[in-house]
Amino acid sequence: MTKPIFNFCAGPAMLPKAVMAQAQQEFVNWNDLGCSVMEISHRSANYIDVAKQAEQDLRDLMNISGDYEVLFMHGGGRGQFASVPLNLLPAGGEADYISTGSWSNAAIAEGKKFGKVNIAAESHSENGFASILPRDKWNLSDNAAYVHYCPNETVDGVEFDYIPDVDKPLIADMSSCILSSEIDVSKFGLIYAGAQKNIGPSGLAIVIVRKDLMGKSREGTPSIYDYALQSQSDSMFNTPPTFAWYLAGLVFKWLKAQGGVKAVQAINKQKADLLYNYIDESEFYSNRVVANYRSKMNVPFYLKDENLNKAFLAESEANGLLALKGHRSVGGMRASIYNAMPLEGVQALVEFMQDFAQRNS
Amino acid sequence: MTKPIFNFCAGPAMLPKAVMAQAQQEFVNWNDLGCSVMEISHRSANYIDVAKQAEQDLRDLMNISGDYEVLFMHGGGRGQFASVPLNLLPAGGEADYISTGSWSNAAIAEGKKFGKVNIAAESHSENGFASILPRDKWNLSDNAAYVHYCPNETVDGVEFDYIPDVDKPLIADMSSCILSSEIDVSKFGLIYAGAQKNIGPSGLAIVIVRKDLMGKSREGTPSIYDYALQSQSDSMFNTPPTFAWYLAGLVFKWLKAQGGVKAVQAINKQKADLLYNYIDESEFYSNRVVANYRSKMNVPFYLKDENLNKAFLAESEANGLLALKGHRSVGGMRASIYNAMPLEGVQALVEFMQDFAQRNS
Repeated sequence: MTKPIFNFCAGPAMLPKAVMAQAQQEFVNWNDLGCSVMEISHRSANYIDVAKQAEQDLRDLMNISGDYEVLFMHGGGRGQFASVPLNLLPAGGEADYISTGSWSNAAIAEGKKFGKVNIAAESHSENGFASILPRDKWNLSDNAAYVHYCPNETVDGVEFDYIPDVDKPLIADMSSCILSSEIDVSKFGLIYAGAQKNIGPSGLAIVIVRKDLMGKSREGTPSIYDYALQSQSDSMFNTPPTFAWYLAGLVFKWLKAQGGVKAVQAINKQKADLLYNYIDESEFYSNRVVANYRSKMNVPFYLKDENLNKAFLAESEANGLLALKGHRSVGGMRASIYNAMPLEGVQALVEFMQDFAQRNS
Repeated sequence: MTKPIFNFCAGPAMLPKAVMAQAQQEFVNWNDLGCSVMEISHRSANYIDVAKQAEQDLRDLMNISGDYEVLFMHGGGRGQFASVPLNLLPAGGEADYISTGSWSNAAIAEGKKFGKVNIAAESHSENGFASILPRDKWNLSDNAAYVHYCPNETVDGVEFDYIPDVDKPLIADMSSCILSSEIDVSKFGLIYAGAQKNIGPSGLAIVIVRKDLMGKSREGTPSIYDYALQSQSDSMFNTPPTFAWYLAGLVFKWLKAQGGVKAVQAINKQKADLLYNYIDESEFYSNRVVANYRSKMNVPFYLKDENLNKAFLAESEANGLLALKGHRSVGGMRASIYNAMPLEGVQALVEFMQDFAQRNS
């Protein structure tokens, strides 16, 4: 009997087994057309059905109202770091950005290319534990066109446990937490997400944008990044990444079959609790994030004896637990446990961690 | 016995059968890792091998010298319509564009967002047949930063049979003709191509850029579109579309196995000759492009009695000949016969066309 393999990669990340099996089965003969879904025109009736169904399923899953447009775009999350200011920040304007870790800081660096960035809250720690500066200590600017934040920091394992209340359009980079828990979309001006964590393969970004915010792109915005133009063309101003969009659609169907976001949120909590509880009990491992702000998607942890890192990685991989190495900027380990990761994967990880600790204590 | 199916879609287009079969076979267990190539980190050693090998194979196929960088980017061809001027046209600068049909005109419209566009040659016809204004009649500007043209017009079926001699960097949108015939890369400043015709699935663009042209992107260029930045990061400044890149690599390997570009060029000529010769002989069909400038990749044709269009499309599809409808802007029919289309596909098409003509004359 071969051991099952569990892939903890932060992204591109594992996709649901059932989705991958279906995509493989119909890979060269989709919909009985005698060719792949990636070999047909994005303007064919067959493909437009795929595209529209994926959008509708996402709308259902996130309860997105008709006040919002849903776009399927090229360029991943980083493309949106530019696209957001190009569309929403008037030339010479100012925007608030909240710094909580690597990805919000990358959005800040890109935002500065397009206007004045007010860092309303800095990356924050409490007694050496990563945390989030309380909302009442943020210095928001009166002139900000929007407030940008990253609800879940993939590298740092820091996650907001609330939606910040602001009086400007709230922009969220949900690349690593979209569809992982129920949220009230109406509190946001715009939500974006690179697909390669909770949605599908890399090369696709989802943008959910309040319709009244579109149509003000600044001069020199590349057309493929113009929200209004893409909206008018049903995200087909240019040829979209059709296979990624199709796979996203399969993931949305799979999520619905699991019982929707509410159901996976409960499993995600179970998975995260299991792992954090074990880490907290253990003398051998530690997590360096304040409890309230621990990510349910990305769990970074450290071996107390970092000389054992190499052995931990080699042995975990040999045991079918893949890609546990922490991001190069922070070291240590990281288990990304997105929607597609089953509870059994986290159980297998904890069992391995226990065994490894026992053998090396 | 089921009839074989041949897919004449202009893009996203058919990929080589052998490539699709391999991708299907290893779809959920690539390289014996227990997961898909789309589920691993783009920064893993395994993936970097894929990425580097694809680049090397493309370099071999096109004989690309070390003076050129090869980039794998998001956003398809239309993304490059903006990326080219953002990187190569100084603010307030001027560039020459050659208008030969739909796609060069789309590049012109986008180029105008970023500077002064001098249309050095207009779309041209001779006695009602689409043609290309001879090089000696072009009005190039002394101040142009570059000369942009589209060697093969996918919609119009017009193709250059020479590389224009200009004294500025020559920029070519080769989306629908890259790798279809041997070219001398050293004559170009930059070549780009959306992948979804001769390379792979949609969502990927290849950029081959002379190194001395990089590093001058203008202020406000989205980082993911900055050639120098992507070059420094081996096209991984942001997460690349990893599955598309992998598939492109398989296509490059397949091309090598066919004998390289020289060998497929010979087959492409055979395919195009077969189809154009039949159209020219026939009283029933016509092509409206001057002979010298007929595309070897996209063959638009018209039924003399256009009332039969609907029947032609329905019957061709029923006979396993897919996606022959012409582009909505020009009507009629179009057979796209990229590298992946075997000679048998064109033979089957001609046989069907003969039979249809006979039954309807």
